[in-house]
Amino acid sequence: MRRLRLGMVGGGQGAFIGAVHRIAARIDGHWDLVAGALSSDAERAHQSAAELGIDPERSYSDFQYMATAEAAREDGIDAVAIVTPNHMHAAPAIAFLKAGIHVICDKPLAATPQEAEEIAAAVKQSGQLFILTHNYTAYPLIRQAREMIAAGELGDIRLVHVEYVQDWLTEESDSKQASWRTDPLRSGAGGCVGDIGTHAYNLACFVSALEPQSLSADLDSFVSGRQLDDNVHVMLRFTGGAKGMLWASQVAVGHENGLRLRIHGSKGGLDWSQENPNVMSFTRFGEPKNILTRGGAAATEAGLRNLRTPAGHPEGYLEGFATIYTEAANLIRHTDQGEPLPEGVHTPNIADGLAGMNFIQACVSSSNSNAAWTNLG
Amino acid sequence: MRRLRLGMVGGGQGAFIGAVHRIAARIDGHWDLVAGALSSDAERAHQSAAELGIDPERSYSDFQYMATAEAAREDGIDAVAIVTPNHMHAAPAIAFLKAGIHVICDKPLAATPQEAEEIAAAVKQSGQLFILTHNYTAYPLIRQAREMIAAGELGDIRLVHVEYVQDWLTEESDSKQASWRTDPLRSGAGGCVGDIGTHAYNLACFVSALEPQSLSADLDSFVSGRQLDDNVHVMLRFTGGAKGMLWASQVAVGHENGLRLRIHGSKGGLDWSQENPNVMSFTRFGEPKNILTRGGAAATEAGLRNLRTPAGHPEGYLEGFATIYTEAANLIRHTDQGEPLPEGVHTPNIADGLAGMNFIQACVSSSNSNAAWTNLG
Amino acid sequence: MRRLRLGMVGGGQGAFIGAVHRIAARIDGHWDLVAGALSSDAERAHQSAAELGIDPERSYSDFQYMATAEAAREDGIDAVAIVTPNHMHAAPAIAFLKAGIHVICDKPLAATPQEAEEIAAAVKQSGQLFILTHNYTAYPLIRQAREMIAAGELGDIRLVHVEYVQDWLTEESDSKQASWRTDPLRSGAGGCVGDIGTHAYNLACFVSALEPQSLSADLDSFVSGRQLDDNVHVMLRFTGGAKGMLWASQVAVGHENGLRLRIHGSKGGLDWSQENPNVMSFTRFGEPKNILTRGGAAATEAGLRNLRTPAGHPEGYLEGFATIYTEAANLIRHTDQGEPLPEGVHTPNIADGLAGMNFIQACVSSSNSNAAWTNLG
Amino acid sequence: MRRLRLGMVGGGQGAFIGAVHRIAARIDGHWDLVAGALSSDAERAHQSAAELGIDPERSYSDFQYMATAEAAREDGIDAVAIVTPNHMHAAPAIAFLKAGIHVICDKPLAATPQEAEEIAAAVKQSGQLFILTHNYTAYPLIRQAREMIAAGELGDIRLVHVEYVQDWLTEESDSKQASWRTDPLRSGAGGCVGDIGTHAYNLACFVSALEPQSLSADLDSFVSGRQLDDNVHVMLRFTGGAKGMLWASQVAVGHENGLRLRIHGSKGGLDWSQENPNVMSFTRFGEPKNILTRGGAAATEAGLRNLRTPAGHPEGYLEGFATIYTEAANLIRHTDQGEPLPEGVHTPNIADGLAGMNFIQACVSSSNSNAAWTNLG
Repeated sequence: MRRLRLGMVGGGQGAFIGAVHRIAARIDGHWDLVAGALSSDAERAHQSAAELGIDPERSYSDFQYMATAEAAREDGIDAVAIVTPNHMHAAPAIAFLKAGIHVICDKPLAATPQEAEEIAAAVKQSGQLFILTHNYTAYPLIRQAREMIAAGELGDIRLVHVEYVQDWLTEESDSKQASWRTDPLRSGAGGCVGDIGTHAYNLACFVSALEPQSLSADLDSFVSGRQLDDNVHVMLRFTGGAKGMLWASQVAVGHENGLRLRIHGSKGGLDWSQENPNVMSFTRFGEPKNILTRGGAAATEAGLRNLRTPAGHPEGYLEGFATIYTEAANLIRHTDQGEPLPEGVHTPNIADGLAGMNFIQACVSSSNSNAAWTNLG
Repeated sequence: MRRLRLGMVGGGQGAFIGAVHRIAARIDGHWDLVAGALSSDAERAHQSAAELGIDPERSYSDFQYMATAEAAREDGIDAVAIVTPNHMHAAPAIAFLKAGIHVICDKPLAATPQEAEEIAAAVKQSGQLFILTHNYTAYPLIRQAREMIAAGELGDIRLVHVEYVQDWLTEESDSKQASWRTDPLRSGAGGCVGDIGTHAYNLACFVSALEPQSLSADLDSFVSGRQLDDNVHVMLRFTGGAKGMLWASQVAVGHENGLRLRIHGSKGGLDWSQENPNVMSFTRFGEPKNILTRGGAAATEAGLRNLRTPAGHPEGYLEGFATIYTEAANLIRHTDQGEPLPEGVHTPNIADGLAGMNFIQACVSSSNSNAAWTNLG
Repeated sequence: MRRLRLGMVGGGQGAFIGAVHRIAARIDGHWDLVAGALSSDAERAHQSAAELGIDPERSYSDFQYMATAEAAREDGIDAVAIVTPNHMHAAPAIAFLKAGIHVICDKPLAATPQEAEEIAAAVKQSGQLFILTHNYTAYPLIRQAREMIAAGELGDIRLVHVEYVQDWLTEESDSKQASWRTDPLRSGAGGCVGDIGTHAYNLACFVSALEPQSLSADLDSFVSGRQLDDNVHVMLRFTGGAKGMLWASQVAVGHENGLRLRIHGSKGGLDWSQENPNVMSFTRFGEPKNILTRGGAAATEAGLRNLRTPAGHPEGYLEGFATIYTEAANLIRHTDQGEPLPEGVHTPNIADGLAGMNFIQACVSSSNSNAAWTNLG
Repeated sequence: MRRLRLGMVGGGQGAFIGAVHRIAARIDGHWDLVAGALSSDAERAHQSAAELGIDPERSYSDFQYMATAEAAREDGIDAVAIVTPNHMHAAPAIAFLKAGIHVICDKPLAATPQEAEEIAAAVKQSGQLFILTHNYTAYPLIRQAREMIAAGELGDIRLVHVEYVQDWLTEESDSKQASWRTDPLRSGAGGCVGDIGTHAYNLACFVSALEPQSLSADLDSFVSGRQLDDNVHVMLRFTGGAKGMLWASQVAVGHENGLRLRIHGSKGGLDWSQENPNVMSFTRFGEPKNILTRGGAAATEAGLRNLRTPAGHPEGYLEGFATIYTEAANLIRHTDQGEPLPEGVHTPNIADGLAGMNFIQACVSSSNSNAAWTNLG
């Protein structure tokens, strides 16, 4: 079974998420990074490629050209990872899809709903796989939570509370990471709501398997002069009567990357936090709280899938991200062989991407209308 | 300095909060319980009084008669504690106030806004003290948090997140405690929102010192047949632009008495939970999180007031409650001597009671109007 | 049922533990403090008594005289609380016992083994009750742990790990509390080992119900010039083959009052910490860890005894201490009525006191012999 | 800069630690696994190699032959990872060292002191690098702790407490992992003390930089019929007067992989636990406890080295292990170029291995002599 060949768009020197994708792709040994358009600046692109051991011949300065060239090679890439700012997702995604190359794309899907629709159309037309790296869905205990809920262990789900709180934008910042995330031209209409709100929303929906119906959102920009929201308050309603609250913030001092999910049903409740992702509390009504551990006692099938180390040997952010890449490899191999997809594989896809875009739009629109209830249908 | 004499209305055999008030009154040695109308059932009232060592002569079966009789005694009670269900607060409160006796009353203030107004009028007219037992405001670290915010240690307050979550009403219940709390005739228009939502709201306002402006509320009753809300979602707006979220629930499986307050400002953030009330985390932007302990390093003046044990020797729910009684005694002694009130004493009062009633009304009204924004002014 | 009458020796202005005893005695309403020899300084004794509302006639400057006088009164005290430094336990304890008055005494039992034996002899001869305030044994979850172990829920006990760590003596100190605790004339041969090591040892034995056999101890005094130990390392062996470790320290920076007990058996393990005493973790081998809460789901009979508040409403140090006083009252009432003692009551007694003295002696002796194994039999 | 070429001895199908080494080697992209003697069973060796994409030509069934063959190739391996049970460390280590190939070896160093000495002699003679995978030393906060102590932030170190507790051997087990770890022929004289006690000891010494002087150890085997220790109690003395305690157990029910280190000095204290390795508490005497996070506020130079993700994005066990491989690559590149070694690189080496063997021997010997103090010099 040969390693798959990966290309990358974006992720040159100084980038954050590009390096994460590369480590994630390496961890389980299913991928080799062999090509890249790592920067729109040609010089920087080639230096970055050299550092990463990419053959100069396959270091490109233009993603369109790269798509064409790689599609033409016998040893062309199996998939491309797109790790640029939001406004630079659509064009390369579409280019590679059209070239018959699978796409692994960072979130949110795009900067605008129109771009999102164009990507979706290209996915449909191309028949290629499109994988969105909502990496938090790949933590083993998150998979286990989803499976427990599906098995009815919490009873009827009544409440979903999700928060994703950080503090790095508490003050004005001109770092590379901050500048594009607070720029509507590069991020789109959502700031915090797009950058991390979509993760929270995606995670809540993934685990609960509830269908969101409508929301009421109150967005703020607490830092003077900032053009996009840095704090997001949302009340959620789901089909069937469940309710939720979502809080996303980048100005909550004291929080580094505080993604937390709590779900309560008629029979039980769950509580999980990303910063210590190897434990989850679970309570059956009337019984003591259980501390479930990754791979530990009472682990379910989904919770045991994709483990690399036994309980007590913590896995983290990169391992979750790696699972996305490993399952992407799994999907690609089956798809390319024309085999049916295996069960138990979950990779966030174009539908998740569109749902995230809807969420951003609904939040912005609701907030602009004094938090009026807005459909998510 | 003689001990003050306390009477009690309600709190007979089988009651919960009456026993709490009695312990709270004993802890610091400022009070003797000497009279009571402990039950509306005469037999039960007298048995309860006997068990508590109350002189049979001062065990009453009628609170109105008790007010008159105690006011007439030379050794009459200095204050009465009213620990009945909500709909039975107004009549005794007014009776004792009119009789010139200070009132310590459980929360929420009353079952209806009209009753609340009548109590308020009686307070004004009588000139007596009225103390509402929002006991959670008396935890030392809560006092410290309030003082730190007032001193500007968090900068401009941007965000207030408060939650008060329990699970004891997850299923239908006919316990004594449950039955009146889910009965509109005895509780008023709010169920969970009145019983614990008001605590959360009061705590958030007490600590932040923000002025609430309006709210959008989504109330639910998840248990079939229940007449009052058992889950409360609220988005808050404060004067000056701060925002908040409040979640109160009695169906959140896995939570016993989960009152938690988080406040974030432009310079720092605080996080405190009632179930382990002797610690609070505090982060200055850009610095490591500090774990502040009750009476420990960096304790402030307000945080050191009313301590009974050194750091590491946990105080709990009853000690906080006791502080309300101790400060009530302090106020009463000064008031009755015609002395100016001492600084640093905080006892929730009639204004807090009215604010709580406004909150309940606004939540119910908002929720009935599809979570429309409703003024709290 | 009348309240019992309490006298106190020690505990005048500025004392710490005397105030704790007084609150503990008040909490459940079984005691009135009516007499005292609160200080060996007559002036201070009387001022202290006046502040506490003790009738001047019953404020004594001499405990011997107090014992005689109180024994002679028809309304004389039922018991005396001795809250002086260690070297001042024996004389008053013996005086009151001889006068036919029950004794409640702070720990450790005495400053020297000889004094301890004299107290023990006086207890035996007098037939009076002697209660040692090892208050930590009265936390509800500690009682529950003991009951769970007795019921075999942990299987055969293999391991006991107890630590009691503080940091307040990290540097030289001349505070009132520090000075006598580091003075061999007032504390006896043990410093940290007597002050808090005995608590740890007592708790470990109380909960495990194991019989200690021998120990190897390494005592240190890290602060230059200090005459008594401030850090204690002990390895323990119990009859039947169980093993243990005990660490007590007053120089462990970052610890306020860190008493923690862990017990592991062939079937399960327990973990409890005093600073958040309302939770305890319990794991059955091969199952997820359970978080047991005071009075919560799965609480046992012993864990539900002496509760004042429901789960989630934290009780603390003073409530545990109060339970000692409440059970002392219970014992005294039964004893004085000639009734058999009720089941389920546990108050540390003279045997615990002697065991603690043996422990101190064994630790000091072992440490002086290069940590040689020393019998505890 | 080419990737280094790695070979592996052991780690065939069903092995645990071999897979960990392979992931660790991949994470940072410095290594390619190109050769192996993955099992002593030839069939199994080749199947395992095939699964890992190793060229069949470089899949060996004999490590001695592999050493010779790889040394002869122009593209021969740069280093070999030895991941066999303890008794199979010495022979391959010596073979590869003699062949001029660097060795990365799992811990403990060997099954017997004689084997350990032979390895040490071969290291010395060969001039090759020898790296022992005490992976826990590579957690970023552990590096930071070491640096903080070296900088004097804790003052004079007084106390070192380390524990490493698991429960997987609570009952008799015949799993592959259990069987060799409880077999003196394959593990050597130490069971739990060798398997995890050496990790604890190494970590304590690494971080504190104290020189161990002597120990008193009490070893037990609680499971009937087990030939090696499953629980280890140790008191430690260090040069200069610091003291320590070490507890290692594989029968402590409720613990998965509970490695915890606490160090207290005259000015401050540290507390770190492996199961949530991204936080560490640090207290300066008289100040509130600080929660330090991996890469967060107040991170030191050593704590920022080798980070892959920002604070709040947890790294775990594999990332720590990967750092050993990355720093090994760093050392090898410098060494092979004849360059001086860079500063700030820490890889456990042959001296650590010998110290661990001394520790095992001293523990076993002390325990056999009733816990007599035994030199570690």
